[in-house]
Amino acid sequence: MKIGFIGLGIMGRPMAMHLKAAGHELIVPERASLAPELRAAATIDSDAAAVAHHAEIIILMVPDTPDVERVLFGAHGVAEGLTPGKLVIDMSSISPVATKEFAARIQELGCDYVDAPVSGGEVGAKNAALTIMAGGSIAAFERALPLFQLMGKNITHVGEEAGAGQVCKVCNQIIVALNIQAAAEALTFARKAGADPAKVRQALMGGFANSRILEVHAERMINRTFNPGFRIRLHQKDLNLALTAAREMGMALPNTALAQQMFSVVTAQGGADLDHSAMVTAIELMGGVEVE
Amino acid sequence: MKIGFIGLGIMGRPMAMHLKAAGHELIVPERASLAPELRAAATIDSDAAAVAHHAEIIILMVPDTPDVERVLFGAHGVAEGLTPGKLVIDMSSISPVATKEFAARIQELGCDYVDAPVSGGEVGAKNAALTIMAGGSIAAFERALPLFQLMGKNITHVGEEAGAGQVCKVCNQIIVALNIQAAAEALTFARKAGADPAKVRQALMGGFANSRILEVHAERMINRTFNPGFRIRLHQKDLNLALTAAREMGMALPNTALAQQMFSVVTAQGGADLDHSAMVTAIELMGGVEVE
Repeated sequence: MKIGFIGLGIMGRPMAMHLKAAGHELIVPERASLAPELRAAATIDSDAAAVAHHAEIIILMVPDTPDVERVLFGAHGVAEGLTPGKLVIDMSSISPVATKEFAARIQELGCDYVDAPVSGGEVGAKNAALTIMAGGSIAAFERALPLFQLMGKNITHVGEEAGAGQVCKVCNQIIVALNIQAAAEALTFARKAGADPAKVRQALMGGFANSRILEVHAERMINRTFNPGFRIRLHQKDLNLALTAAREMGMALPNTALAQQMFSVVTAQGGADLDHSAMVTAIELMGGVEVE
Repeated sequence: MKIGFIGLGIMGRPMAMHLKAAGHELIVPERASLAPELRAAATIDSDAAAVAHHAEIIILMVPDTPDVERVLFGAHGVAEGLTPGKLVIDMSSISPVATKEFAARIQELGCDYVDAPVSGGEVGAKNAALTIMAGGSIAAFERALPLFQLMGKNITHVGEEAGAGQVCKVCNQIIVALNIQAAAEALTFARKAGADPAKVRQALMGGFANSRILEVHAERMINRTFNPGFRIRLHQKDLNLALTAAREMGMALPNTALAQQMFSVVTAQGGADLDHSAMVTAIELMGGVEVE
């Protein structure tokens, strides 16, 4: 199948190569930064409109909401090249609210739209082991599914509403941030009280306090390994999606708001590019806890 | 061995019976409320002082800090009956700060002291499957260990400082409350945005958002089964231990403080005796989300 792929960064590049390896034809827009392996593997078109014109399915994997809007609806964008019957899949992590509007505009052109953000990071992308959370009609999802199966493992059709996948991704980022904050407050409390955080973590891993975060991120907090991983800067972007959407919907997310502020404390200390487990340094700072 | 057991409620009764079943001699203080099985199984003394006089090891399992203080140091309390060389084990969940003082006063009498709060609830107590978090000297812990192994499974010697077990239990209750809040905010966000919370939970269980709370409590939130379980009233007592100790130590626990307020929102609606997963109703209330 002819697949257009726009957004060939750390995540997008290995995802596209999995599609190519399965026998699909890759079409990508010209970019000075195109990796040699992609230049060799793909057909190269002048811009996103030309990619959309030649491909049957167009996949986006770009950083943020304005990037998706520009790629889809900007000058020489995807919308200019679409003809009815094609499928657009946005795998970026962006605003669920904006996604509804983007999907409606693409559908007006007679095309299908699936939002399908991922989690699992660079490692998941390289190993074709991403978690994929999709929103869109059953027909559109089933059309996308064989491609998803080449890139991911946990694939869920969250709902038929446009944006359901983005809502699920936002929920993921809320829980991860808040579980990190939970571990950070508990381990800092232990340290301040003179207990050994490593022993406390060990004792808690058998019970209801256990989580993937306690297993992975709490260990980083104890070992002080804050190289990313997942950067606080990016997690702040995702929590901003949550808080903006919540405000637009008219609801309160008190702890998500607080977690965003805690990340800002780390950022204020110069830690925006540390792993999100460095949230613990904010709790330590505010608690007068010094860790050598 | 002669074991005094004080505090024979929902938790203490099955714990004491496991000791008896293993061949130990139980000594308990007279109480009108003593269960017939205990009356048949135990030697009954007039008060805590007499129990401490006749037993080699005295175990406490009572509700809160003032109860431990009264049992140990009140009129006809344990301290009056102790002679040097005995061991006091407090398995109640109480203040880590007060525990240091209690331990020091018992040690002045020439006795050992171990604080060893548990998690796992009534089911864990009945099945001898409690998680036990202990603080105290290595010698005292090793003396208590054979008894712990009759009542629990995950047994950790958290530290040699008196109160280390209580610190660990407080950490457990912090993480559980905050992970519940994480699931509550995420699932309510999903619901408000029109997604199916059950599908969102399913999608998230494979990734970094996974936790025992997402497995157990998030399902209660979705199924609206808020019968305890673990009552909000009791979790508020435990978070109060965390917040009081944090203030005494001079540190901030911003999210623990917020979680306490969220539980108070549920309590304000008459929900103090609901399961702690009913935290989600506070987020729903504040978000204008109605769930039938």
